[in-house]
Amino acid sequence: MADTAVEFSGWAAKKNWGPETPLEKWSYNPPKLGPNDVTIAIDYCGICGSDLHTILPGEKGGWSTQSREEMDPVIAGHEIVGKVVEVGSQVKDHHVGDIVGVGPQVRSCLECDMCTSNRGNLCSKRTSTYNAKYHDMPGYKLCTQGGYADKIRVHEHWVLPIPKGLDPKVVGPLMCAGVTTYAPLKRFNIGPGKSVGVVGIGGLGHLALQWARAMKADHVVAISHSDKKKDAAQKFGATDYCDSSKPESMDRWKGKLDLVLITSFGNDTEWTPIIDLTKYDGGITCFLAIPSEPLKNIKAITMCQSQRMITGSFIGDPAVTAEMLRFAEEHKIAPQIEVHPMRHVNEVLKMQDDGKARFRYVLDNHA
Amino acid sequence: MADTAVEFSGWAAKKNWGPETPLEKWSYNPPKLGPNDVTIAIDYCGICGSDLHTILPGEKGGWSTQSREEMDPVIAGHEIVGKVVEVGSQVKDHHVGDIVGVGPQVRSCLECDMCTSNRGNLCSKRTSTYNAKYHDMPGYKLCTQGGYADKIRVHEHWVLPIPKGLDPKVVGPLMCAGVTTYAPLKRFNIGPGKSVGVVGIGGLGHLALQWARAMKADHVVAISHSDKKKDAAQKFGATDYCDSSKPESMDRWKGKLDLVLITSFGNDTEWTPIIDLTKYDGGITCFLAIPSEPLKNIKAITMCQSQRMITGSFIGDPAVTAEMLRFAEEHKIAPQIEVHPMRHVNEVLKMQDDGKARFRYVLDNHA
Repeated sequence: MADTAVEFSGWAAKKNWGPETPLEKWSYNPPKLGPNDVTIAIDYCGICGSDLHTILPGEKGGWSTQSREEMDPVIAGHEIVGKVVEVGSQVKDHHVGDIVGVGPQVRSCLECDMCTSNRGNLCSKRTSTYNAKYHDMPGYKLCTQGGYADKIRVHEHWVLPIPKGLDPKVVGPLMCAGVTTYAPLKRFNIGPGKSVGVVGIGGLGHLALQWARAMKADHVVAISHSDKKKDAAQKFGATDYCDSSKPESMDRWKGKLDLVLITSFGNDTEWTPIIDLTKYDGGITCFLAIPSEPLKNIKAITMCQSQRMITGSFIGDPAVTAEMLRFAEEHKIAPQIEVHPMRHVNEVLKMQDDGKARFRYVLDNHA
Repeated sequence: MADTAVEFSGWAAKKNWGPETPLEKWSYNPPKLGPNDVTIAIDYCGICGSDLHTILPGEKGGWSTQSREEMDPVIAGHEIVGKVVEVGSQVKDHHVGDIVGVGPQVRSCLECDMCTSNRGNLCSKRTSTYNAKYHDMPGYKLCTQGGYADKIRVHEHWVLPIPKGLDPKVVGPLMCAGVTTYAPLKRFNIGPGKSVGVVGIGGLGHLALQWARAMKADHVVAISHSDKKKDAAQKFGATDYCDSSKPESMDRWKGKLDLVLITSFGNDTEWTPIIDLTKYDGGITCFLAIPSEPLKNIKAITMCQSQRMITGSFIGDPAVTAEMLRFAEEHKIAPQIEVHPMRHVNEVLKMQDDGKARFRYVLDNHA
């Protein structure tokens, strides 16, 4: 049930977001503090492409076919860093004053096969940080509300302690873009002897390159549809660069990669030439970004006669997120960020929508 | 170069096969016997769906867009059993009089990464048993010619000794349908604790069920678009049956299978509900049959939010084929066959084209 004694305040989309319909200041009553809940005063919140997909109308790239007016207002933001200001009676591992992070998920059932094997990101009752119904609170009417706000209340399981060596400013993007790219590299045992391709050198891709290089992959190949990202790719650790618009560049890598991470896409992308970059008998193309349209021209023969594989990866659970944070601390890996005041959120979203992010925006509640 | 002193004789498609343009008797000069070649007098040859795809015109399900008149005549057939009648000077493991089998491949480079790791079925220079150009004999003009014939000449590496306990009549279909279904079950470690689905209960599917049951999978689920195959599926070892036309039947298996083998398809098959039968985080949908059209409505989200995988499998190399033959002998596994005289090949192909095979036709050179 709602905690009517408490109001959290943030920047909500009450209609589909656009120039005439910006996010507006809005306050809401969060669910009551449960015994396992933690209340966090938010210092920083990164901006993820998913935020825009959630608040944009369908015709402009939004994921929902519903108009936002027919849904709850929603405060987006799931790359959250802040201070613990309150803990429920059962919470043991978090304490008031701790600096903690929250990613794209705030609850799960904690009982299913997935939850009990450190794969709670795949729990069928997983609850996204914003725009999701609470599976365990039928009496609470609002959807979950995210991090473009002053505070958030989250189940302790999905609250991550932040290693001392990490600058809190950069932790937000690690909580989503970071673990999204780190988890599949670990799942497929990337390290010496393996070669990795990264399609798209943006918010996700620039982190994927850094992880793969630090994991000591033989080749870390940045793949982009022009040569514009070449310098950036090298800076973030790419050992090689593949311009996918050039057939000779694609031929160079055909059948050579153990894993290709898809971090960006066009709905008209032809996937077969990308899949063909992976090794015969087990080379993997792994989607991290999610085109809403069906994948174009995927033919069974592409996989049969080469025994290649296609799969996807979905963020990560707290265990792999904690591992990723330690790895980032140890290898001094961070997203390249541009920090703006939280109150400028609409301007920053406009820049994100215009494709200007180099490479990740972070909103600051104290600026 | 062609061996002008020798003629092999078989049933060739000189035009695209049809009621007015049947296979006709045709003789050809095979390539000269190389030091590693084996000549086999064919006793039996099974009929595979690929045979029809090769000799039919495109509009009737043929794989080629070319008319057969613009190509070599071709003798189809790649499920071959016969007696060794001649061996090249370097051949050590095969002797005149041996009963041997040949599947869909007769040559490979024997030097590449695939060939040297028992994956010659994926060699980029692999040579199919019929309708393929010889990669290593530029002077020989004809394509390879298959098993609807009296004899065939094959590189020793692709000739398999037949275990004594196997009836030669059933070995033909094992050489293609058998290893095509056996290899992916081994690749994905099917055994106790694993559950397998088999889509399509036909020439491939009825063998897949037998292997999976003998490997002691917990559940071997026959999946078909009606309940007509239920009795047959049970006979071949299915522990369970899923009628894919019934939502409640599909719901029963959703997320429950480690591996689903696709052994048949329609070009309008919706794959997402099939992929959804596999387990979260690593469940595999594996295509054995090869739709020529792009797979319909494959969305990245289907794989991302469940971390499921799609792949394919392509026949098998001699090592896994030999293992499969021993496994068939040990577990008394055989295709269900109907034997017809080789000279009736056109009538038998007509029955195959009409979908009457229950479950595999075998042509007999001595009947």
